[in-house]
Amino acid sequence: MNKIFNPKPADWNTILERPTQTVDDIEATVSQIFSEVQKNGDQAIKKYTSFFDNVKLDNFVVSQAEIDAASMNVSDELKAAIALAKTNITKFHEAQETPKIEIETTKGVRCWQEKRAIQKVGLYIPGGTAPLFSTILMLAVPAKIAGCDEIILCTPPNKEGKVNPAILYTAKLCGITKVYNVGGIQAIAGMTFGSETISKVYKIFGPGNQFVTVAKQLATKYGVAIDMPAGPSELLVVADETANASFVASDLLSQAEHGTDSQVILVTTSKKFLDEVESAVEAQLGVLPRKGIATKAINNSKLIYVENDQIALELINEYGPEHFIVCANDEDFYTNGIQNAGSVFVGNYTPESAGDYASGTNHTLPTNGYAKAYSGVNLASFQKSMTFQKITPEGIQNIGNAIELMAEAEGLQAHKNAVTLRLDALKAKS
Amino acid sequence: MNKIFNPKPADWNTILERPTQTVDDIEATVSQIFSEVQKNGDQAIKKYTSFFDNVKLDNFVVSQAEIDAASMNVSDELKAAIALAKTNITKFHEAQETPKIEIETTKGVRCWQEKRAIQKVGLYIPGGTAPLFSTILMLAVPAKIAGCDEIILCTPPNKEGKVNPAILYTAKLCGITKVYNVGGIQAIAGMTFGSETISKVYKIFGPGNQFVTVAKQLATKYGVAIDMPAGPSELLVVADETANASFVASDLLSQAEHGTDSQVILVTTSKKFLDEVESAVEAQLGVLPRKGIATKAINNSKLIYVENDQIALELINEYGPEHFIVCANDEDFYTNGIQNAGSVFVGNYTPESAGDYASGTNHTLPTNGYAKAYSGVNLASFQKSMTFQKITPEGIQNIGNAIELMAEAEGLQAHKNAVTLRLDALKAKS
Repeated sequence: MNKIFNPKPADWNTILERPTQTVDDIEATVSQIFSEVQKNGDQAIKKYTSFFDNVKLDNFVVSQAEIDAASMNVSDELKAAIALAKTNITKFHEAQETPKIEIETTKGVRCWQEKRAIQKVGLYIPGGTAPLFSTILMLAVPAKIAGCDEIILCTPPNKEGKVNPAILYTAKLCGITKVYNVGGIQAIAGMTFGSETISKVYKIFGPGNQFVTVAKQLATKYGVAIDMPAGPSELLVVADETANASFVASDLLSQAEHGTDSQVILVTTSKKFLDEVESAVEAQLGVLPRKGIATKAINNSKLIYVENDQIALELINEYGPEHFIVCANDEDFYTNGIQNAGSVFVGNYTPESAGDYASGTNHTLPTNGYAKAYSGVNLASFQKSMTFQKITPEGIQNIGNAIELMAEAEGLQAHKNAVTLRLDALKAKS
Repeated sequence: MNKIFNPKPADWNTILERPTQTVDDIEATVSQIFSEVQKNGDQAIKKYTSFFDNVKLDNFVVSQAEIDAASMNVSDELKAAIALAKTNITKFHEAQETPKIEIETTKGVRCWQEKRAIQKVGLYIPGGTAPLFSTILMLAVPAKIAGCDEIILCTPPNKEGKVNPAILYTAKLCGITKVYNVGGIQAIAGMTFGSETISKVYKIFGPGNQFVTVAKQLATKYGVAIDMPAGPSELLVVADETANASFVASDLLSQAEHGTDSQVILVTTSKKFLDEVESAVEAQLGVLPRKGIATKAINNSKLIYVENDQIALELINEYGPEHFIVCANDEDFYTNGIQNAGSVFVGNYTPESAGDYASGTNHTLPTNGYAKAYSGVNLASFQKSMTFQKITPEGIQNIGNAIELMAEAEGLQAHKNAVTLRLDALKAKS
């Protein structure tokens, strides 16, 4: 682990630099597959499923019978755990519902804002070694609360051409009826253009490898919205001597096991604590099944000592971590002062994995510094804000002259005329 | 004008097709300028200002003296109009402030969501023939309410290397202190990378021509967020025999004068009304100063007759207009049923130009069908939603086992360990 003491602010950007991903070389591949799927639909999707996933599928719709049967292959214990997580996620996202906002800005000028669901959404759930059924909860639960009419789910087939039962079970539990056994670039392309089988959607959600990430970026060029740009997952812990070194080490490792490019950072105001965490990480690392991955990420990790909380906060806001754990005496200083973070975990008994699964917050969060401008997925991610206005004859008489003057000053005479005609008609009436 | 009667749903997409913009040929130019600005900063910005705007500027910071002096060149009448508009925009956007959302999802598991301002934002205001000072109100007012720390404004110089006084006056009125006399691709690149003079920002807002649009798209590749993708402006009016043909014609024309590629659509359930609007458009068109532009847009416009409100609504939701005017007997049918629109204008005395300037709603809206997935600019556009959670020892005992089971089922052992360690520590204590 890299230990850094009292870094100068001028060096923060270098120290906190994220691994750069070069995507230029995969853009050509992604573009090629997009254009084939746009032209040939299902046929192209099957071709690339065969090419990338090594399975030939005549039909990539997961049947209702398969979805129903999945329940038998999920243990009752796991079902209960998923139910608990779903309950908490539902509670927290239902609490995010907002009322219609309505105001009379000038007498006779009524303006209001309402949220309306995005009608068609597509969820992408990675498969492979780690079947991320928890991500279905994080995406499908708010989509249902928002009231999206059509929710489709794409997930790659395993070697036998099947979908993991925990994924199918969770999808059914969340009320998703359309599951497609398609992954990767071809899945994103299918949801972007639509095919004989897959519906075109308005917004695509979900994590994925760098092929999926580039494909989602390309989808935006074709008018499809995406949840957010993605990058490797990251965790920053701020801790002082009131924290528990063993707990903090376990949190750093839970981030490190995600991938070799995961970002793991400790910022502390205690040199003693820094050393304790280093020892605890070494001790815990040995027994992890994903030790190889975690070791590589830990080798790139940083343990940073700074002199006080104020400097720590400035450094953290400059970084903008996806996950931010606060194990410090003055919790409020950090929770009030943090400007840029995806999700914040406060106190010694709040591991990041709680938010990954079951506390109720969403785990689809901005990485790569995007927390400076992007929100994590929340109920509003599945809605649009629409505005409305209704103006009475009295209202247009109150604001009409201002509109005429401004339109004229901007050189937009027809904009002015639309008001003048109405004002004249009202004058003629009175 | 193109009159279409009872189109079949299968033909809607073709009838409502928007003009496609081919941007591939400008992407190379935009990329080149981005890489020069990234490398050479101010020098490259000045080079391209000279190239595109034909003015040589030693210094593109607009001085406080120039900003202050602008007030003398804006009439008192226009100042009063701008003040009225600002008051209404402020009222409507302040009403959008949301409280902290807090909930205990399980006993001992407290989750909350807070909005935090995006710290650094950049506003782009086009100059040229129409100085869009109204757009400053639409962007700077919510940015100030949100509490953005740094708000910078870029706007292109005119032939004399100056900025229109109405733009400077409005910027000052909104509390913007950093104005740069830079436009086009080089302005967007400057805000993306920062230069000796211009601050790097986290999110860029504002309209522009297709060069600016492509530059904003490219900015997102470098981690900068943008308000929304842009396209030509558009208006759809739904009207029946209760509407006023002359008013509707004036609204269609106010849209048409924006540009030759503006989209102008009337959907009506009355053939008689359709003919009346056609005549009124011809009559009003003659006297417009921007007649040339408006005529081209009107030639591409569509007057569509459908048999009833239900079909009209379906067609409108399929289109997803930026601006949607409802002049129909059953207003509620449309305001309740509209799923995809940027901003909705209800009734005979609510011209689109009211929302463009002074009703209080925002005029930065999703075009090109993006209303299906994107919101117009609103207070939340200048904020991120951040989530927080704090779990007590009791709380982790309540949800810990569920987390362990789910982490294990996803193959993430270190995620499980972070919980197990804490549960074991609590067992040892009790």
